[in-house]
Amino acid sequence: MLGIFSLSVSAQTNDKVKEDFQASSVNQPGREFPKVNAEGRVRVCIEAPQAHKVQLDIGGVKYDLEKNEEGVWTGESAPQDEGFHYYQLNIDGASVPDPGSKYYYGAGRWGSGIEIPAHDMGFYAMKDVAHCSITENIYFSEITKDWRRNFVYLPPRYFENSEKRYPVLYLQHGSYEDETGWASQGHTNLILDNLIASGKAKKMIVVMDNGYAYKPEAMQIAKNGYPKSSFEEVLIEEVIPNIDKKFRTKSSREDRAIAGLSMGANQTMRIIMNNLDLFAYYGGFSGTSNYPGNEKIDPETFLNGAFNDADKVNEKLKVLWLGLGTREPEVFFKTVGDFREMAEKKGINYTFYESPETAHEWLTWRRCLHQYAQLLFK
Amino acid sequence: MLGIFSLSVSAQTNDKVKEDFQASSVNQPGREFPKVNAEGRVRVCIEAPQAHKVQLDIGGVKYDLEKNEEGVWTGESAPQDEGFHYYQLNIDGASVPDPGSKYYYGAGRWGSGIEIPAHDMGFYAMKDVAHCSITENIYFSEITKDWRRNFVYLPPRYFENSEKRYPVLYLQHGSYEDETGWASQGHTNLILDNLIASGKAKKMIVVMDNGYAYKPEAMQIAKNGYPKSSFEEVLIEEVIPNIDKKFRTKSSREDRAIAGLSMGANQTMRIIMNNLDLFAYYGGFSGTSNYPGNEKIDPETFLNGAFNDADKVNEKLKVLWLGLGTREPEVFFKTVGDFREMAEKKGINYTFYESPETAHEWLTWRRCLHQYAQLLFK
Repeated sequence: MLGIFSLSVSAQTNDKVKEDFQASSVNQPGREFPKVNAEGRVRVCIEAPQAHKVQLDIGGVKYDLEKNEEGVWTGESAPQDEGFHYYQLNIDGASVPDPGSKYYYGAGRWGSGIEIPAHDMGFYAMKDVAHCSITENIYFSEITKDWRRNFVYLPPRYFENSEKRYPVLYLQHGSYEDETGWASQGHTNLILDNLIASGKAKKMIVVMDNGYAYKPEAMQIAKNGYPKSSFEEVLIEEVIPNIDKKFRTKSSREDRAIAGLSMGANQTMRIIMNNLDLFAYYGGFSGTSNYPGNEKIDPETFLNGAFNDADKVNEKLKVLWLGLGTREPEVFFKTVGDFREMAEKKGINYTFYESPETAHEWLTWRRCLHQYAQLLFK
Repeated sequence: MLGIFSLSVSAQTNDKVKEDFQASSVNQPGREFPKVNAEGRVRVCIEAPQAHKVQLDIGGVKYDLEKNEEGVWTGESAPQDEGFHYYQLNIDGASVPDPGSKYYYGAGRWGSGIEIPAHDMGFYAMKDVAHCSITENIYFSEITKDWRRNFVYLPPRYFENSEKRYPVLYLQHGSYEDETGWASQGHTNLILDNLIASGKAKKMIVVMDNGYAYKPEAMQIAKNGYPKSSFEEVLIEEVIPNIDKKFRTKSSREDRAIAGLSMGANQTMRIIMNNLDLFAYYGGFSGTSNYPGNEKIDPETFLNGAFNDADKVNEKLKVLWLGLGTREPEVFFKTVGDFREMAEKKGINYTFYESPETAHEWLTWRRCLHQYAQLLFK
C-alpha cells in the first residue's frame, strides 16, 4: 500500500548498500532502472536537472535521492519485503509514476510497481508448461446500467478440447483495485498453469470481475456517504449466468468456488453465505466479512446468523479457507482472529494459512491463491 | 509521436481559450484532469509546489504551465488534431507520465495518452451490440528462444457457436509499439464489433502479435547495427500454425489477410509477397516495404521482383489496400506515392484511402482498419 502518512529518510543513511543491483523484472522494455539488490533495496534513477528535491516513495517511506553533475538523481530504499510493491517518485512535490517501471492498478491509481524476488517465486514463474488464455470480456449490466468488464482464465487446451467442461472459481480484488489485478500483478495465469501442469490443481476457469458495482440511484443517494454496493446482485444475476452460457462450465454448486482478497474477502464471504446453493468453496485472503472487526463476532447476528448452525456450514462448505501475511497491519489479524475464534467455538471447520514475512500486498495473495487452488474441486 | 526536437511555448500565449473543457475519456478512474475542450486543446494540472518549471509536452511542442498559490500547475496546449496522442509532463527537466491519464505503449515507452474527440468517433464507440472477447496468449518461440505473446480478437458468439469457423486477419503494430496497441488505443475490438453488428464486415478472427523478433545470435551480431528480424519466420512457422490449431479458423489463402501500420505495413507487404500461397489480402496503413523510399521503385528488383508480374499480383491479391493520413510527414507520402506510381505504371490494382486531417497517429490507423476490414473475405 502507498502510505498516506509517510516518513522522509535520507537515502545516504543506508550505509553498506550491497552493490549487486539488477534491473527489476517489471521494468519497461530496455530500461536499466529501477533496480533491486539482494537485500531487497530498490534503487531508482531519473534525470531532473532543474529539480530541488527528488524522492523515492515506497512502503510508506520517502527516501531522498542525490543529484550528480549531469542532473541525474539516484538513490535507494531500505530493504523491502519479498514480493510486489507499488511505489512512486516525488519530484519537487509532484507524485508521479517512475518512467522506468511498468504500471499497475492499485491504491486507486495506475502507477509504478516493483518486484523484490521472493525465495519461493518459482510457483509464479514462467515455465515450459502448457499455458492458459486470459480473455477480456465486456458486458452491459442491466443492474448498474453501465458497461463492465471481466477477465477470464481459460485453462490450457480449453480451445483445443472442444467438449470438456470445467469448474469455475470467482476471484475478487481488494479495495482501490480493479479487475486487472489478479491477471497482472496477481499472476493468476502462471500460478494456475504451474499448478495444473504439476497435477496439484484441477483444470478450472477463473473469473475476475470488478467488485465495484452501484445502481445509478445508489450514486445519487450516496452524496453524503458510501453508496450501497450491488456487486452481489451483479455477480449472481448477471456474471454467473453469462459465464455459464458463454464458456464450457460445470455449473453445480460443487463445481463453483469463490474467493477474494481484503475487500474481496469481505464481499465474497457475504456472497457465499447468502448463496450456499451456488458455491461450495470459500477463500478469504487477508479478510473476512467482519472487517474492520471492532467487536467480537456474535454468530447469531453475524451475516444474519449464517455461521450459527455449524453442522450446516460444515456440510455445505467443502473448503472454508483463510489466509494472512505475518506482517499485515494489526486490524487484519484482529478481524481474521475474531472469525477464527468464533469458528472454533462453534466447531466450524476451516483451514488457516500464514504467508511468511509478507504484508497486505500481492505476494501474500499469490501465495493464498497457490494454496487455496490446490484444494478446489476435489 | 513524441517529438525528439521540441519547441517550447508559453501556455499564456493561447489567448481566447474556449472554456468548455471536459475530462478526457481516457483518464484514470475519478480523475478530473487532463481535460480537452471543443477546440482540441489539452489542459493538464499537477501539484508540484516546489517546482521551478512544469511543461506539457505534446505534438512535438512543450507548453509552459502556470503555478497558483497552492503550488498547483495548470496550462493548455494549442488545438490538437482529432484522435489519440501520446504526451508527457516535464517537471524541472524530468519527463514523466501524467498521473491523471491512463497509460499506453508507444514511442518506445508506457506513457500518457489523450483522446481528442473525433467527428467520426462513432465507428469506434462502445455500442449496444454483441461484443468480442480479446484473448491473451503466450507461447515459446523455438526461433527466437523466448516467450512471446499475442492478443487474439474472437468475434461475438465465438464461444457460443462451437462449430463455426472464421477467416483470420493478422494485424501488426508500428515501430516502438508492441502487441498491445491494436487492442488498446487501436480499438480493434470496438471497430470490428460495430462493423460486424451492422453487417459491413464479415465475422473474423484478428491476431495481433509482436513485430519484433530476433534470434539470439542476431542480437549478438548486431552489437554495431540493427539485428536481422526473424518476424516473418516466427509468423509463418509458429504463429499461423498455432492459431490454426488453437482456434476455429478457415485456413485457405482466401481466408487469410494481413495488414500493418508503418513498420508493420513494411513488414507485412514483404511477408505477403513472399507467401502468396498463404494470404490473399494486404493492407498497408501509413507505409509500404520501400520505406523510407529514397529512390523510385524498380519493380524488377523491389522485393525480388514480386510486383513485376502485374497479372499474377492482380490474380493473387484480392485486395491491395493503402491508407495514409493527410497530415503525415512527407516521407510517408513519398514512400506510398512511389509505390502507387509503380503500381499504376505496371497496371496493378490497388485501393488508396486518405484519412482527413490526421498525422502518423492512431486515428489514421483506426480509420484504415475500419475501411480495410469491410473489404475482407468477400
